[in-house]
Amino acid sequence: MSHFSELFNEKLHQKKIPVGIIGATGMVGQKLIELLAHHPWFEVVAVAASDKSAGICYENATSWRMTSPLCEKIAKLVLQKCQPQNFPCSLIFSSLASEAAHPIETAFIKEGFFVISNSSCYRMDPTVPLLIPEVNSDHLHLLATQNFKGKIVTNPNCSVTAIALALKPLIQRWGVEQCSVVTLQAISGAGYPGLAAYDLIDNVIPFIEGEEQKIEQELPKILGSYDQKKIALSPINVSAQCNRVPVLEGHLACLSVQLSQTVSQKEILNSWQDFASHLSFSLPSLAKYCLLYHPEKDFPQPRLHKQLGAGMTVSIGQLRSCNIFDWKFTILSHNTIRGAAGGALLNAELLVEKGFIKRD
Amino acid sequence: MSHFSELFNEKLHQKKIPVGIIGATGMVGQKLIELLAHHPWFEVVAVAASDKSAGICYENATSWRMTSPLCEKIAKLVLQKCQPQNFPCSLIFSSLASEAAHPIETAFIKEGFFVISNSSCYRMDPTVPLLIPEVNSDHLHLLATQNFKGKIVTNPNCSVTAIALALKPLIQRWGVEQCSVVTLQAISGAGYPGLAAYDLIDNVIPFIEGEEQKIEQELPKILGSYDQKKIALSPINVSAQCNRVPVLEGHLACLSVQLSQTVSQKEILNSWQDFASHLSFSLPSLAKYCLLYHPEKDFPQPRLHKQLGAGMTVSIGQLRSCNIFDWKFTILSHNTIRGAAGGALLNAELLVEKGFIKRD
Amino acid sequence: MSHFSELFNEKLHQKKIPVGIIGATGMVGQKLIELLAHHPWFEVVAVAASDKSAGICYENATSWRMTSPLCEKIAKLVLQKCQPQNFPCSLIFSSLASEAAHPIETAFIKEGFFVISNSSCYRMDPTVPLLIPEVNSDHLHLLATQNFKGKIVTNPNCSVTAIALALKPLIQRWGVEQCSVVTLQAISGAGYPGLAAYDLIDNVIPFIEGEEQKIEQELPKILGSYDQKKIALSPINVSAQCNRVPVLEGHLACLSVQLSQTVSQKEILNSWQDFASHLSFSLPSLAKYCLLYHPEKDFPQPRLHKQLGAGMTVSIGQLRSCNIFDWKFTILSHNTIRGAAGGALLNAELLVEKGFIKRD
Amino acid sequence: MSHFSELFNEKLHQKKIPVGIIGATGMVGQKLIELLAHHPWFEVVAVAASDKSAGICYENATSWRMTSPLCEKIAKLVLQKCQPQNFPCSLIFSSLASEAAHPIETAFIKEGFFVISNSSCYRMDPTVPLLIPEVNSDHLHLLATQNFKGKIVTNPNCSVTAIALALKPLIQRWGVEQCSVVTLQAISGAGYPGLAAYDLIDNVIPFIEGEEQKIEQELPKILGSYDQKKIALSPINVSAQCNRVPVLEGHLACLSVQLSQTVSQKEILNSWQDFASHLSFSLPSLAKYCLLYHPEKDFPQPRLHKQLGAGMTVSIGQLRSCNIFDWKFTILSHNTIRGAAGGALLNAELLVEKGFIKRD
Repeated sequence: MSHFSELFNEKLHQKKIPVGIIGATGMVGQKLIELLAHHPWFEVVAVAASDKSAGICYENATSWRMTSPLCEKIAKLVLQKCQPQNFPCSLIFSSLASEAAHPIETAFIKEGFFVISNSSCYRMDPTVPLLIPEVNSDHLHLLATQNFKGKIVTNPNCSVTAIALALKPLIQRWGVEQCSVVTLQAISGAGYPGLAAYDLIDNVIPFIEGEEQKIEQELPKILGSYDQKKIALSPINVSAQCNRVPVLEGHLACLSVQLSQTVSQKEILNSWQDFASHLSFSLPSLAKYCLLYHPEKDFPQPRLHKQLGAGMTVSIGQLRSCNIFDWKFTILSHNTIRGAAGGALLNAELLVEKGFIKRD
Repeated sequence: MSHFSELFNEKLHQKKIPVGIIGATGMVGQKLIELLAHHPWFEVVAVAASDKSAGICYENATSWRMTSPLCEKIAKLVLQKCQPQNFPCSLIFSSLASEAAHPIETAFIKEGFFVISNSSCYRMDPTVPLLIPEVNSDHLHLLATQNFKGKIVTNPNCSVTAIALALKPLIQRWGVEQCSVVTLQAISGAGYPGLAAYDLIDNVIPFIEGEEQKIEQELPKILGSYDQKKIALSPINVSAQCNRVPVLEGHLACLSVQLSQTVSQKEILNSWQDFASHLSFSLPSLAKYCLLYHPEKDFPQPRLHKQLGAGMTVSIGQLRSCNIFDWKFTILSHNTIRGAAGGALLNAELLVEKGFIKRD
Repeated sequence: MSHFSELFNEKLHQKKIPVGIIGATGMVGQKLIELLAHHPWFEVVAVAASDKSAGICYENATSWRMTSPLCEKIAKLVLQKCQPQNFPCSLIFSSLASEAAHPIETAFIKEGFFVISNSSCYRMDPTVPLLIPEVNSDHLHLLATQNFKGKIVTNPNCSVTAIALALKPLIQRWGVEQCSVVTLQAISGAGYPGLAAYDLIDNVIPFIEGEEQKIEQELPKILGSYDQKKIALSPINVSAQCNRVPVLEGHLACLSVQLSQTVSQKEILNSWQDFASHLSFSLPSLAKYCLLYHPEKDFPQPRLHKQLGAGMTVSIGQLRSCNIFDWKFTILSHNTIRGAAGGALLNAELLVEKGFIKRD
Repeated sequence: MSHFSELFNEKLHQKKIPVGIIGATGMVGQKLIELLAHHPWFEVVAVAASDKSAGICYENATSWRMTSPLCEKIAKLVLQKCQPQNFPCSLIFSSLASEAAHPIETAFIKEGFFVISNSSCYRMDPTVPLLIPEVNSDHLHLLATQNFKGKIVTNPNCSVTAIALALKPLIQRWGVEQCSVVTLQAISGAGYPGLAAYDLIDNVIPFIEGEEQKIEQELPKILGSYDQKKIALSPINVSAQCNRVPVLEGHLACLSVQLSQTVSQKEILNSWQDFASHLSFSLPSLAKYCLLYHPEKDFPQPRLHKQLGAGMTVSIGQLRSCNIFDWKFTILSHNTIRGAAGGALLNAELLVEKGFIKRD
């Protein structure tokens, strides 16, 4: 992301914002640490994971599985217990597993922290933004309705972000009534160690616990509109079927959508291009294009396209008419960047840009 | 298939029917030869592939990729040119690639052969049965309308057979109006050498040339009804999206279906079980159950279940209600057995059983 | 193994020998249960695994990962605690993980059971045969030196069996002085769940805990000679390097060997063929050939050849001269059959055949 | 490689050296184009591949399989025939398949071009340097013995470079007498499309045509010494066994070596570290460390470490004593970068640095 260092040059000369990470040793935590290693605005000052890892330095407690070497400064950080008093900062990234997340995140919010959560536990709370900066930054108005000393925003399930980004331009212009989704999801979405190699070599698992429900519930909230201190759910009707495939990173989704109006293929392509070209803000982790359409007949492909826009671009391909609904197409996004760590980071950047998180 | 040798014991003492295979060296041809190696009714007497392999013995011309050793007798057969005069038999299995198939299959039919074709070239011909014995054996009445000296029946595209088998019981009882399908297809479906390893390791290809069209066109014919010397297409509306996944054998398909009536989950499960238990004929390659429902939450899986019923059983799982249509579920079948070589063989067996092909 | 039912027909009419399995739910335990489902001599009457699974029926406690369906009778067996009093039989197969195995196997031996162990804990005990029937059945004389009420024999590490089988004919005729081995081992060797899918997709792990030591220590014992109530270790010098590759079953090993005499390629090939053709006993699980040489230039391959001889045949290929030692070649064997469950079963069969285990 | 742009800043202001690529559409050609896209010294001005692609623009003739998008300027270059008159430059990178390479490379040399070849055809020519800059830059003296109007240097087989780099420090200090190598090689080494996916899923191929011979022949030349206008071959005795594994990039090799002297583990580790830290020249594509030892017990791994040093660092791990020879260890390198395109590029940079190739 070398060009960002220039774009945000003036901010580089300011003091960086200290941040803590809870759930720092898992797959998403590792990716966050990789993305934050050279971030122009944020600096990791404290990390925590499970209680049993507390007291161990990060590099010894972690099976580092990222391909870029672990940043030396963070390697030497000693893991804390997940308690607010251990965090000398006011901004927390949480990538805790969902079972553990609720009481811990709640403790941090009550103590006044601003929590950027990748966990599912607060996503459907009516006062909590389920935030994708390019899609629903107006949902940040909900923050004023939160009653804690601190604040929390969440980012969606790893499959949902890409779908919401692809649907938003269609909803804005014409409305979307039905959306049938079948996913082919990467194994990194199950964390580490996640699934057994024995189950995924020469195989596909047609089931991911709780995933279909998340897709069906989260999309109407994300695509809903803020009105009178609440989110009015989008009327979109969503059905999802989820599969795990032997791919490391990159969730693919096959969509069929019924629009509220008749439109041409060219109008849809234009809507995606216009959307990707006209964002009203600029952030270090924003891709040049949040959506990119590939005209090649066998694109997008997980391995070839997951890393586009440093993992923040959603690839779309194969838009064609559909016998049942109006249109079908295929989307792809990097599940641990766009769908998790990068999405959370982008949310934090938006909160800084909008003044919700203060720099000194 | 050891129990078949007992079941069809009396037939074993009869002389076997000599058969030829054209397209014998490809993936489906190899599977046919594997399945025919110990078949109680048929005996391979001649094989052919491309012109350039003519004159070479089978084992030298073939990259044998089956896991059971090549039968010695066939290993030594010399490959012929694909011309009728080279085949001392009246029954031909064709697994030619579709571009080559049409003129060659036509030549054989004109010369009076009975052609059992796995190619797509004759599938949509209105006088040609697109045959799945358990689904539409009445379509064999079409044979009387064929004007060649010989006859031809075809079996469907490798993805279609399983879908047709799963839908047939629902159509019989309640009608099916919409069927949205997303496939995760095995690489053996692309033949050999087929796709490059470099494209399928850590990757998925969201495209298979011509496959969606075949699924959308073939299903209404297969599920149609024979009436007045024609097939009246089923009114079912089908939309398909096809993906290639790094799996050797076993096509998985995620279906959403809208029935013409409101039915319960239990009624659907019963319809599948009843259908599988009450076939009116018995054939050597018929599985004990042509459909098998798996109650486990993460079944069916390609590697675990492709071989059920010696590869002839279609596995179904995960029947659950759908936000958009009535029901969604997942099906799995062995693409080179149930979906190709085994399907063709079953068709030939049905033709013998029904008297269309004579034993001496 | 249908032909065995005929060969051993007369034994079928006898009462089967009841056996228990401890460690019955793991990868090797499952394979044992699959192999024993239709065994002509043995019948599984009791199963046990970890204490926490005790009281649960087998099918509910097990993630069944075999491709043939679980035998219904065993599916309903209730798992016991691993204590001798729970086993109404005198023959025990143990496939316990090695840490747990020692005290449990010892308890069974002390109580008078005959233990056929796949664990490593007793393998190097000087009074315990490390048995491969085709290689060192004379090591059974060691049983007379065991001081327990019961007896125990062990089978080697999953990589070792195939190496020992390939080397034995060379040792018999000419002696082998040096053997350098590099393995490419399948993931099933690590049990279930074993390695993480995330670590094995598009990757190789050049390390298997304790494996190299086992290969280097076990081979001299197996290939040693029984003399005066002891095994005199073979003077062979072994060096091993072990790798884990993304293959489900089938350990491949690249060997370089220095013989004590100069011999021709043809002599080596003959020694393997002669060895495989002249065994002095016959057992239900013996393959027709325990060794099979493949002349094809790119054979043996794990997926194509692991199942030869129902998984009991060791494949060899690519014998060629070596710049450093005399000869190099590649071997392949099914690690959970020949290298584990099938090897243990063959040992039990030999013990019955030799009269160490009584039939009633 | 952003830090290089600073290091070589002054050279950036100079005019870039125009280069042509023959064999530009294959796997190595694509990687070269990716590496040259932002190179500080070189600029691609002409490309060629097979005759049948001549006249087509690069992006249309190529199945681009790199993960970074194809540089737009090169995308639009029209492919030429592989004839000298079509190349408006004096420096040529050749990544032609070896069968085609000899006459074409010869034609270019005769016409006065400086050819940097990745093909095998000229590697063993006694007047041609088989060049690895960190290992044998003194072999460039051979250029004076070449009798063509132009010149040629070659880089080694993709497996050889890493072995030579790991052995060179040992040879310099103590001598190496024996080296037994078993490789686990990535599929990209076979070019594109290369191997069939059907052969590499759940499988390993224990054979690569001609590869063992290349390793055994090339190493003694590379590690030999220049003396009196010739290369005196190193007395090292090499034996290789080569396997293809389902890994995209990254060749792993298991080595056993016998040194001419007794040394300690620490001395070997120091020799690698010293070698990597004390190179006498600096080039844009040189990694900070050409060798890096990993102390972790299960490293190096292809996916995790191939990209270290932008793909130019050779990783080493698991140094341990050996029962047969003195030491064994595992090495890993990126086969299409360090072992092919990056190696060729580094050679070209060295030639510029040493003045063999002129800048204007």
